[in-house]
Amino acid sequence: MHIMEPFNVVIDLKSGELSPGKRVLRRVSDVKALFFDQEAAEKLIQSGDPLVYEVIYADIPEEEGHLGNCTTIIYPGKVGEEFFLTKGHRHEKLGTAEIYFCLQGKGKLLMESVEGDWRILDMFPGSASYIPPYWSHRTMNVGKEPLVFYCIFPADAGHDYATIEKKGFPKLVVERNGEVVFIDNPNWKKDV
Amino acid sequence: MHIMEPFNVVIDLKSGELSPGKRVLRRVSDVKALFFDQEAAEKLIQSGDPLVYEVIYADIPEEEGHLGNCTTIIYPGKVGEEFFLTKGHRHEKLGTAEIYFCLQGKGKLLMESVEGDWRILDMFPGSASYIPPYWSHRTMNVGKEPLVFYCIFPADAGHDYATIEKKGFPKLVVERNGEVVFIDNPNWKKDV
Repeated sequence: MHIMEPFNVVIDLKSGELSPGKRVLRRVSDVKALFFDQEAAEKLIQSGDPLVYEVIYADIPEEEGHLGNCTTIIYPGKVGEEFFLTKGHRHEKLGTAEIYFCLQGKGKLLMESVEGDWRILDMFPGSASYIPPYWSHRTMNVGKEPLVFYCIFPADAGHDYATIEKKGFPKLVVERNGEVVFIDNPNWKKDV
Repeated sequence: MHIMEPFNVVIDLKSGELSPGKRVLRRVSDVKALFFDQEAAEKLIQSGDPLVYEVIYADIPEEEGHLGNCTTIIYPGKVGEEFFLTKGHRHEKLGTAEIYFCLQGKGKLLMESVEGDWRILDMFPGSASYIPPYWSHRTMNVGKEPLVFYCIFPADAGHDYATIEKKGFPKLVVERNGEVVFIDNPNWKKDV
């Protein structure tokens, strides 16, 4: 029997840095298609293509019984009136949950169930959001500082980004008159 | 199809309070049998039976695909020369992992594999300890403040406390001359 060695990763509770970890960077050009205002996105890309978010993964086998985990850091910013956001995903194994444990900043967690319902939870230091099985999930930074959270998921859950890229989420999270507002996403396609 | 509602629990990043949650309290009298020095344990029970630790569980179905989660708060203290500790457990489904994400304090995470090997990891604010499948686990507070950590495990893992109560762990974590020392547990019974 192969028994894996226990190990520590160290997470900076302020910055979200996770070490040792494998980092994925997403600039505006990487996530351009997700935003409603394509013109604003193109302008941002031309003017330096800023970082939207990073994910830092602990090295865990993608196998049943294991727990995948990573930190996510979403930078403050907007594309047009829409807040910086993550790609969002559903699990390939739809019947698996995820936890987002927020360490710093102010965010929104947008979810869509496989039946087309949507929900939004607040993220703030100390919030531990439970994303039950069968909910796609995306997060937005609606504050002025980086939004930092620690994510835990069954390591064999699998990440399906393509479906969300095609269908979008039912809502957009935007700033209007200094307020965080949820508006209908005219480009949303319900599951068929 | 029944789809569960997403929800937040709020964790106090300093105290470990988790709300809403279900609290389990363990006093010296509840965990007396775990300590080597039974006389010192009995004395502590007579002189007020102090709280050794608390666990506060989020309300999650114990089903496959879900993620059980709780905070644990171990108070500073000793029974004889042995640091306050948790009961410790192995998972009924042995092939399941657990994560201990430390928020406050200074601790040790003692593990024993089903093959009888032992390992110890340090716990400190920001340490995220990965307990792979097939390792029993117990924690000790070796500092002067409460040790606070957030635990995440597959919700269907199951907790087997009885085996550990019978066999003990290979090591005791004690204070000698102001140092934290690991010594052999003379009462340890290897898996057979």
